[in-house]
Amino acid sequence: MSDKFELHPQLAADCFDLGRLDLSRLLLMNDARYPWLILVPERPVHELHHLSTTDLHRLMDESARLASTMEALFRPDKLNVASLGNVVAQLHLHHVARYRDDEAWPGPVWGRGRAQPYAPEQAQQRIDSLRRAFEGSASS
Amino acid sequence: MSDKFELHPQLAADCFDLGRLDLSRLLLMNDARYPWLILVPERPVHELHHLSTTDLHRLMDESARLASTMEALFRPDKLNVASLGNVVAQLHLHHVARYRDDEAWPGPVWGRGRAQPYAPEQAQQRIDSLRRAFEGSASS
Repeated sequence: MSDKFELHPQLAADCFDLGRLDLSRLLLMNDARYPWLILVPERPVHELHHLSTTDLHRLMDESARLASTMEALFRPDKLNVASLGNVVAQLHLHHVARYRDDEAWPGPVWGRGRAQPYAPEQAQQRIDSLRRAFEGSASS
Repeated sequence: MSDKFELHPQLAADCFDLGRLDLSRLLLMNDARYPWLILVPERPVHELHHLSTTDLHRLMDESARLASTMEALFRPDKLNVASLGNVVAQLHLHHVARYRDDEAWPGPVWGRGRAQPYAPEQAQQRIDSLRRAFEGSASS
Protein backbone atom coordinates (compact mmCIF):
# COMPACT_ATOMS: atom_id res chain seq x y z
CA MET A 1 0.00 0.00 0.00
CA SER A 2 2.82 2.40 0.87
CA ASP A 3 4.27 1.97 -2.61
CA LYS A 4 1.24 3.62 -4.11
CA PHE A 5 1.10 6.41 -1.57
CA GLU A 6 1.29 9.87 -3.08
CA LEU A 7 1.77 13.01 -1.06
CA HIS A 8 -0.96 15.57 -1.75
CA PRO A 9 0.42 18.14 -4.24
CA GLN A 10 -0.45 21.04 -1.92
CA LEU A 11 1.64 19.53 0.90
CA ALA A 12 4.43 18.77 -1.57
CA ALA A 13 4.37 22.41 -2.75
CA ASP A 14 4.26 23.97 0.73
CA CYS A 15 6.82 21.77 2.50
CA PHE A 16 10.28 20.26 2.45
CA ASP A 17 10.14 16.45 2.48
CA LEU A 18 12.47 15.20 5.25
CA GLY A 19 11.92 11.52 4.53
CA ARG A 20 9.99 8.51 5.75
CA LEU A 21 9.52 7.16 9.23
CA ASP A 22 7.96 3.75 9.92
CA LEU A 23 4.45 4.94 9.19
CA SER A 24 4.64 8.57 8.11
CA ARG A 25 6.32 11.03 5.81
CA LEU A 26 7.98 13.86 7.78
CA LEU A 27 7.61 17.36 6.31
CA LEU A 28 8.90 20.80 7.27
CA MET A 29 6.48 23.59 6.39
CA ASN A 30 8.28 26.23 4.33
CA ASP A 31 7.28 29.05 6.67
CA ALA A 32 10.03 30.66 8.71
CA ARG A 33 7.52 32.33 11.05
CA TYR A 34 7.10 29.12 13.08
CA PRO A 35 9.01 25.85 13.49
CA TRP A 36 6.30 23.71 11.89
CA LEU A 37 6.58 19.99 11.17
CA ILE A 38 3.95 17.67 9.70
CA LEU A 39 3.50 13.91 9.84
CA VAL A 40 1.64 12.32 6.94
CA PRO A 41 0.77 8.66 7.63
CA GLU A 42 1.07 6.72 4.38
CA ARG A 43 -2.50 5.49 4.58
CA PRO A 44 -5.44 6.44 2.34
CA VAL A 45 -7.66 7.91 5.07
CA HIS A 46 -8.80 11.40 5.99
CA GLU A 47 -9.45 11.12 9.71
CA LEU A 48 -7.32 9.96 12.65
CA HIS A 49 -10.01 7.55 13.83
CA HIS A 50 -10.10 5.86 10.41
CA LEU A 51 -6.60 4.52 11.04
CA SER A 52 -6.40 1.05 12.57
CA THR A 53 -5.71 1.08 16.31
CA THR A 54 -2.17 -0.15 15.61
CA ASP A 55 -1.51 2.60 13.08
CA LEU A 56 -3.05 5.28 15.33
CA HIS A 57 -0.73 4.23 18.16
CA ARG A 58 2.26 4.17 15.78
CA LEU A 59 1.39 7.65 14.51
CA MET A 60 1.17 8.98 18.06
CA ASP A 61 4.50 7.34 18.94
CA GLU A 62 6.04 9.14 15.96
CA SER A 63 4.27 12.33 17.02
CA ALA A 64 5.61 12.08 20.59
CA ARG A 65 9.13 11.52 19.31
CA LEU A 66 8.82 14.50 16.96
CA ALA A 67 7.34 16.69 19.71
CA SER A 68 10.19 15.77 22.08
CA THR A 69 12.69 16.66 19.38
CA MET A 70 10.99 20.01 18.71
CA GLU A 71 10.81 20.78 22.43
CA ALA A 72 14.54 20.14 22.84
CA LEU A 73 15.50 22.03 19.69
CA PHE A 74 13.14 25.01 19.72
CA ARG A 75 12.23 25.46 23.43
CA PRO A 76 8.69 26.62 22.60
CA ASP A 77 6.22 28.03 25.11
CA LYS A 78 3.65 25.55 23.75
CA LEU A 79 3.32 22.91 21.09
CA ASN A 80 0.19 22.85 18.95
CA VAL A 81 -0.62 19.38 17.57
CA ALA A 82 -3.57 19.15 15.22
CA SER A 83 -5.31 17.17 12.50
CA LEU A 84 -7.55 19.62 10.63
CA GLY A 85 -7.77 18.82 6.92
CA ASN A 86 -10.36 21.43 5.97
CA VAL A 87 -8.18 22.56 3.06
CA VAL A 88 -6.08 19.43 2.30
CA ALA A 89 -8.13 16.33 3.13
CA GLN A 90 -5.20 13.85 3.10
CA LEU A 91 -4.61 12.95 6.75
CA HIS A 92 -1.73 14.98 8.17
CA LEU A 93 -0.79 15.91 11.72
CA HIS A 94 0.60 19.41 12.33
CA HIS A 95 3.21 20.11 15.03
CA VAL A 96 3.82 23.82 15.52
CA ALA A 97 6.22 25.32 18.07
CA ARG A 98 4.51 28.39 19.51
CA TYR A 99 5.89 31.38 21.40
CA ARG A 100 4.17 34.09 23.39
CA ASP A 101 5.68 36.64 21.03
CA ASP A 102 4.89 34.91 17.72
CA GLU A 103 2.61 36.78 15.34
CA ALA A 104 -0.47 34.60 15.86
CA TRP A 105 -0.26 34.00 19.65
CA PRO A 106 -2.53 33.01 21.33
CA GLY A 107 -4.60 32.29 18.23
CA PRO A 108 -4.03 29.36 15.87
CA VAL A 109 -1.58 29.65 12.98
CA TRP A 110 -3.73 28.16 10.21
CA GLY A 111 -5.06 30.58 7.63
CA ARG A 112 -3.31 33.51 9.28
CA GLY A 113 -1.19 35.87 7.16
CA ARG A 114 1.21 34.65 4.51
CA ALA A 115 3.93 32.04 4.79
CA GLN A 116 7.47 33.48 4.91
CA PRO A 117 9.58 31.05 2.88
CA TYR A 118 12.97 30.19 4.34
CA ALA A 119 16.08 31.52 2.64
CA PRO A 120 17.80 28.47 1.07
CA GLU A 121 20.71 28.30 3.54
CA GLN A 122 18.34 28.89 6.46
CA ALA A 123 16.17 25.97 5.28
CA GLN A 124 19.20 23.72 4.97
CA GLN A 125 20.39 24.60 8.47
CA ARG A 126 16.96 23.91 9.95
CA ILE A 127 16.65 20.61 8.10
CA ASP A 128 20.13 19.51 9.16
CA SER A 129 19.57 20.34 12.82
CA LEU A 130 16.17 18.62 12.78
CA ARG A 131 17.61 15.50 11.18
CA ARG A 132 20.43 15.32 13.73
CA ALA A 133 18.13 15.88 16.71
CA PHE A 134 15.44 13.51 15.43
CA GLU A 135 17.90 10.72 14.65
CA GLY A 136 19.51 11.24 18.05
CA SER A 137 16.11 10.59 19.65
CA ALA A 138 15.63 7.24 17.88
CA SER A 139 16.52 4.98 20.79
CA SER A 140 15.30 7.15 23.62
CA MET B 1 -3.66 10.97 41.26
CA SER B 2 -7.10 11.24 39.64
CA ASP B 3 -8.62 12.06 43.02
CA LYS B 4 -6.69 15.30 43.11
CA PHE B 5 -7.39 16.22 39.51
CA GLU B 6 -9.12 19.55 39.08
CA LEU B 7 -10.57 20.74 35.83
CA HIS B 8 -9.20 24.15 34.81
CA PRO B 9 -11.78 26.81 35.81
CA GLN B 10 -11.91 28.20 32.26
CA LEU B 11 -12.85 24.79 30.84
CA ALA B 12 -15.38 24.33 33.66
CA ALA B 13 -16.92 27.72 32.83
CA ASP B 14 -17.04 27.21 29.05
CA CYS B 15 -18.28 23.61 28.95
CA PHE B 16 -20.83 21.08 30.15
CA ASP B 17 -19.16 18.21 32.03
CA LEU B 18 -20.46 14.94 30.57
CA GLY B 19 -18.56 12.70 32.96
CA ARG B 20 -15.45 10.57 33.23
CA LEU B 21 -14.07 7.96 30.88
CA ASP B 22 -11.22 5.63 31.82
CA LEU B 23 -8.58 8.34 31.44
CA SER B 24 -10.34 11.57 30.54
CA ARG B 25 -13.11 13.93 31.47
CA LEU B 26 -15.54 14.43 28.55
CA LEU B 27 -16.78 18.00 28.00
CA LEU B 28 -19.23 19.62 25.61
CA MET B 29 -18.26 23.17 24.65
CA ASN B 30 -21.19 25.51 25.29
CA ASP B 31 -21.15 26.88 21.76
CA ALA B 32 -24.07 25.97 19.52
CA ARG B 33 -22.19 27.08 16.38
CA TYR B 34 -20.28 23.77 16.21
CA PRO B 35 -20.65 20.29 17.73
CA TRP B 36 -17.51 20.55 19.88
CA LEU B 37 -16.35 17.97 22.41
CA ILE B 38 -13.20 18.00 24.52
CA LEU B 39 -11.27 15.23 26.25
CA VAL B 40 -9.25 16.23 29.32
CA PRO B 41 -6.92 13.44 30.47
CA GLU B 42 -6.79 13.47 34.26
CA ARG B 43 -3.04 13.87 34.31
CA PRO B 44 -0.99 16.90 35.41
CA VAL B 45 0.74 17.53 32.07
CA HIS B 46 0.48 20.22 29.39
CA GLU B 47 1.61 18.38 26.27
CA LEU B 48 0.48 15.15 24.59
CA HIS B 49 4.03 13.80 24.48
CA HIS B 50 4.40 14.28 28.25
CA LEU B 51 1.83 11.52 28.80
CA SER B 52 3.22 8.02 29.27
CA THR B 53 3.01 5.88 26.14
CA THR B 54 0.22 3.87 27.76
CA ASP B 55 -1.79 6.98 28.61
CA LEU B 56 -1.20 8.51 25.16
CA HIS B 57 -2.55 5.36 23.54
CA ARG B 58 -5.52 5.29 25.93
CA LEU B 59 -6.28 8.92 25.16
CA MET B 60 -6.20 8.26 21.43
CA ASP B 61 -8.46 5.23 21.88
CA GLU B 62 -10.94 7.48 23.71
CA SER B 63 -10.49 10.10 20.98
CA ALA B 64 -11.19 7.56 18.22
CA ARG B 65 -14.33 6.36 20.01
CA LEU B 66 -15.50 9.95 20.47
CA ALA B 67 -14.73 10.84 16.84
CA SER B 68 -16.68 7.79 15.60
CA THR B 69 -19.63 8.82 17.75
CA MET B 70 -19.50 12.40 16.43
CA GLU B 71 -19.21 11.18 12.84
CA ALA B 72 -22.31 8.99 13.23
CA LEU B 73 -24.30 11.64 15.10
CA PHE B 74 -23.35 14.86 13.28
CA ARG B 75 -22.28 13.70 9.79
CA PRO B 76 -19.63 16.42 9.50
CA ASP B 77 -17.66 17.21 6.36
CA LYS B 78 -14.49 17.04 8.48
CA LEU B 79 -13.43 16.50 12.06
CA ASN B 80 -10.81 18.79 13.56
CA VAL B 81 -8.83 17.17 16.39
CA ALA B 82 -6.33 19.37 18.20
CA SER B 83 -4.27 19.93 21.31
CA LEU B 84 -3.42 23.65 21.41
CA GLY B 85 -3.35 25.00 24.97
CA ASN B 86 -2.15 28.51 24.16
CA VAL B 87 -4.92 29.95 26.34
CA VAL B 88 -5.65 27.11 28.81
CA ALA B 89 -2.46 25.16 29.43
CA GLN B 90 -4.10 22.11 31.04
CA LEU B 91 -3.86 19.33 28.43
CA HIS B 92 -7.14 19.01 26.53
CA LEU B 93 -7.96 17.55 23.13
CA HIS B 94 -10.55 19.34 21.00
CA HIS B 95 -12.89 17.47 18.64
CA VAL B 96 -14.88 19.80 16.41
CA ALA B 97 -17.39 18.70 13.76
CA ARG B 98 -16.91 21.00 10.78
CA TYR B 99 -19.14 21.78 7.81
CA ARG B 100 -18.43 23.55 4.54
CA ASP B 101 -21.13 26.07 5.46
CA ASP B 102 -20.10 26.74 9.07
CA GLU B 103 -19.05 30.28 9.88
CA ALA B 104 -15.31 29.61 10.18
CA TRP B 105 -14.83 27.16 7.28
CA PRO B 106 -12.16 26.44 6.07
CA GLY B 107 -10.35 28.30 8.87
CA PRO B 108 -9.95 27.01 12.42
CA VAL B 109 -12.65 27.72 15.04
CA TRP B 110 -10.40 28.83 17.89
CA GLY B 111 -10.47 32.53 18.74
CA ARG B 112 -13.04 33.22 16.05
CA GLY B 113 -16.16 35.24 16.92
CA ARG B 114 -18.17 34.71 20.09
CA ALA B 115 -19.54 31.47 21.46
CA GLN B 116 -23.31 31.07 21.05
CA PRO B 117 -24.47 29.39 24.26
CA TYR B 118 -27.04 26.62 23.84
CA ALA B 119 -30.61 27.25 24.98
CA PRO B 120 -31.11 25.02 28.07
CA GLU B 121 -33.42 22.48 26.38
CA GLN B 122 -31.15 22.40 23.30
CA ALA B 123 -28.15 21.65 25.52
CA GLN B 124 -30.03 18.87 27.29
CA GLN B 125 -31.06 17.30 23.98
CA ARG B 126 -27.52 17.39 22.67
CA ILE B 127 -26.09 15.93 25.88
CA ASP B 128 -28.69 13.15 25.94
CA SER B 129 -28.10 12.18 22.31
CA LEU B 130 -24.32 12.25 22.80
CA ARG B 131 -24.56 10.09 25.93
CA ARG B 132 -26.76 7.54 24.16
CA ALA B 133 -24.55 7.39 21.06
CA PHE B 134 -21.30 7.30 23.03
CA GLU B 135 -22.50 4.58 25.40
CA GLY B 136 -23.78 2.62 22.41
CA SER B 137 -20.24 2.68 20.99
CA ALA B 138 -18.64 1.20 24.13
CA SER B 139 -18.18 -2.34 22.88
CA SER B 140 -17.63 -1.60 19.21
